[in-house]
Amino acid sequence: MNQNSQTYYERAWAHLDQLTKPPRSLGRVEDIAAQLCAIQQSNHPKTNPRSVIVFAGDHGVCEEGISVFPQSVTGEMLKNMAGGGAAVSVLSKLHEAKLRVIDVGSKLPADQSISGVERNVIRAGTHNMTQEPAMTKDEMNLAVDTGRNAVREEIEHGTNLVIFGEMGIGNTTPASALCAAIMQYTVPAITGRGTGLDNQGLQHKISIIEKAMDVHEKHLDSAESILTCLGGFEIAAMVGGILEASKNHIPVLLDGFIVTVSALLATKIDPAVRDTLIASHVSVEPGHRHILDYLKLNPILDLNMRLGEASGALIALPVIDAAAAIFNEMATFESSGVSGQTS
Amino acid sequence: MNQNSQTYYERAWAHLDQLTKPPRSLGRVEDIAAQLCAIQQSNHPKTNPRSVIVFAGDHGVCEEGISVFPQSVTGEMLKNMAGGGAAVSVLSKLHEAKLRVIDVGSKLPADQSISGVERNVIRAGTHNMTQEPAMTKDEMNLAVDTGRNAVREEIEHGTNLVIFGEMGIGNTTPASALCAAIMQYTVPAITGRGTGLDNQGLQHKISIIEKAMDVHEKHLDSAESILTCLGGFEIAAMVGGILEASKNHIPVLLDGFIVTVSALLATKIDPAVRDTLIASHVSVEPGHRHILDYLKLNPILDLNMRLGEASGALIALPVIDAAAAIFNEMATFESSGVSGQTS
Repeated sequence: MNQNSQTYYERAWAHLDQLTKPPRSLGRVEDIAAQLCAIQQSNHPKTNPRSVIVFAGDHGVCEEGISVFPQSVTGEMLKNMAGGGAAVSVLSKLHEAKLRVIDVGSKLPADQSISGVERNVIRAGTHNMTQEPAMTKDEMNLAVDTGRNAVREEIEHGTNLVIFGEMGIGNTTPASALCAAIMQYTVPAITGRGTGLDNQGLQHKISIIEKAMDVHEKHLDSAESILTCLGGFEIAAMVGGILEASKNHIPVLLDGFIVTVSALLATKIDPAVRDTLIASHVSVEPGHRHILDYLKLNPILDLNMRLGEASGALIALPVIDAAAAIFNEMATFESSGVSGQTS
Repeated sequence: MNQNSQTYYERAWAHLDQLTKPPRSLGRVEDIAAQLCAIQQSNHPKTNPRSVIVFAGDHGVCEEGISVFPQSVTGEMLKNMAGGGAAVSVLSKLHEAKLRVIDVGSKLPADQSISGVERNVIRAGTHNMTQEPAMTKDEMNLAVDTGRNAVREEIEHGTNLVIFGEMGIGNTTPASALCAAIMQYTVPAITGRGTGLDNQGLQHKISIIEKAMDVHEKHLDSAESILTCLGGFEIAAMVGGILEASKNHIPVLLDGFIVTVSALLATKIDPAVRDTLIASHVSVEPGHRHILDYLKLNPILDLNMRLGEASGALIALPVIDAAAAIFNEMATFESSGVSGQTS
């Protein structure tokens, strides 16, 4: 934490300890309030307006048969998100968060534009990472910049908190590869069943990820190069978005495994990112908990979720709202005339 | 679960498994949605309007020095709650829950009425349970009826979910005694630091609770008798409120230790109560986790909270809202044209 944030953090605790409750009796909700003050460098933390940005992309590695859903679902779900029927649509409406859906790399044909989905496609799906790098370095940079630009636009519209979500059939496979490469964990330790693989499917997925990592072994020496070889367009866009939010003192409420992999990459590129992250939940994907431990982030919820598309972050969002409201609106012992402790 | 609820529960799962997400990928949020359908016996679970009812009472056992706060704080906090400065005030406003504060037994003088606090005082504080029963049987019944009546009024106004909260300096002491008596646990295993006792204070509190249990040993043979000997007026009112909500198919979102002790007593009086309870969080008080385990309830949050006054339940409430919204508003695979699993 930099010096300015540290000052706001200490002031925040001094204020929290004057509020009409036994000191620290709201536990981690108070921690979150203090963290919001530190990130926003403010004595009045704000969580409204907030933005949910879902990036979508398809994955060449799907031709290896690593998902139980057909690749067409990526495009179909974009339509569902824009139409209000997806979990992220329902939850962002419920919790009054602005939702943007940005296609950065789906295979949806260019002539099938969907009302409510922004089209900013780098390429219609990555290459199969078991054969060649998922993307070129230029494509990676373009995707990162797309994420940065989206966040910059939200900041111009006054956002105070950003949530990222993703849609991309098969994307736990590149995410697991990225996670293994960055943290140097073994592939079986961080690979899970995604949307519902059986034991045989899981073993196959592990072997595909190991194959991809072998193919690119000599190029896994920086976050950017790892992202180019093993990434996805939606993941690269989130890396850019997280970097941009962090740079601008905007808290990032993390969703599940894929978003947290993006945060891991962003943290490798700029270590200051870590202090602007709030972990909403820990998912069923085993890699998720490993990254949270690695980044020393403590998730708010542990509800066996594994949907992605920002759903977990949106379910935890009102806890952040509660933290800000407690901080901003509760009375102090002095202002209310309530007696303090006698001992 | 009775047969009618069971039917709604099974229908709920059939619906949840048709929504556009991998089956069960919203984890416990889906469990909560199905439970809401079962409790409300409905295909369209509702969490609005909802009611927060805070009962307050003082405790004769405070003269034994078992709290770090002076007893005057009970009345002072009632004023603070009605004035909008307490955690429960801020959180019920944030999450659009109606708040009622009902004084069933504080020591606040009768001529000091507080605007916004309903006065329904059984007696100004219980007796010291280390000397005599905390209340008479008639007083216990009156307090239970007060709780029942408050919930009946909320039902008449259309409430679909009830949260109970409490205010009463010293009330973790009777709550621990009730918990030990009902579950037949040892006192040290279920007694905690309340609002902030040090080690010496905790040992003293344990010895006071053990003394009270010895004094009433021969009368701890039914929930009603245990409540009469060791209870509090706010606890008895919540027992009544929980019984009434359960009888009317209204979900009860539990707060912390004191409310959960009340739910334990209600469950002893009517075992059907258990299926209408949703555990919002597990607090720092060790007895809380023991009761949740005993009732086989799985808390949504574990955030080191120990404030009471409904704050934990209100912080978890939006997760219940999210469960209902997911159930009611998400598209199905069929309605949205999204492809299902291929394997």
